[in-house]
Amino acid sequence: MTTARLWKPDPKLDLVLERVVDVPRELVWKAWTQPEHLKVWFCPAPWSVSDCEIDLRPGGVFSTVMRSPEGQAFPHFGCYLEVVPNERLVWTDALLPGYRPSEKPFFTAIIVLESKGSCTRYTATAIHRDEAGRKRHEEMGFHAGWGTALEQLVAHTKKM
Amino acid sequence: MTTARLWKPDPKLDLVLERVVDVPRELVWKAWTQPEHLKVWFCPAPWSVSDCEIDLRPGGVFSTVMRSPEGQAFPHFGCYLEVVPNERLVWTDALLPGYRPSEKPFFTAIIVLESKGSCTRYTATAIHRDEAGRKRHEEMGFHAGWGTALEQLVAHTKKM
Repeated sequence: MTTARLWKPDPKLDLVLERVVDVPRELVWKAWTQPEHLKVWFCPAPWSVSDCEIDLRPGGVFSTVMRSPEGQAFPHFGCYLEVVPNERLVWTDALLPGYRPSEKPFFTAIIVLESKGSCTRYTATAIHRDEAGRKRHEEMGFHAGWGTALEQLVAHTKKM
Repeated sequence: MTTARLWKPDPKLDLVLERVVDVPRELVWKAWTQPEHLKVWFCPAPWSVSDCEIDLRPGGVFSTVMRSPEGQAFPHFGCYLEVVPNERLVWTDALLPGYRPSEKPFFTAIIVLESKGSCTRYTATAIHRDEAGRKRHEEMGFHAGWGTALEQLVAHTKKM
């Protein structure tokens, strides 16, 4: 198996958001890996994040509680798989912290950051089990949602 | 979350085989990570392993095809999570290679090797989603099976 085969998204199964943003990748990394920053930008408004736990190492917890405008809570538990500072962050909800298989696997996320001068090429890939998972995520608004969240991230990092 | 909480097995959900074997851990590592060696010892006889693919890095494939004495094939696909040479090997079948969530998650395995003079303390932990998974694995003969396989590994490494 080559690296290309490992990481190349499958258009039937995966969703990709790629953007160049005008903030350095060190700030993008910080926004993704520190709860006090992540809570500010992670959910497209008027939704919000009321809680976030991060144990930044393979096997560590990445959990968030999203709140609807009406206050309903949507907890999400994941487990980090790869933590390469300022370069690559991988986590999945197919595993709970400590690598325990989870009840309701949905997707694995890979965030890749590349420097482009003072900007960052930002690539977020969501990897699903099957086509139904990809479609469901698309219908939930993956592109608009992750795009808006990224705009919120950029706006927040400029105030950091 | 502390390291202790991350790695401490839960007796309701997990199974552990711990043994001290009289071979150095470098040989145990080799036996676990090279297909030509793994195929010799991985299945308690008269079962056998007819195929094995190993891409030894996080996200890489770990697949085996086990054969019953009657020749029936039982393929098993997994994905490596942690690869720390001579120390720790972690993989799961909750993910396919490239971290894609799998259809039939069953367990995550953690193999820990510690030097004890010229011997090795060998700890294999199987982490399940729920109690039913742990019971099923126990009834499939986890302790006898993994124990016999380890004896076969030791016998093989002495001929390496």
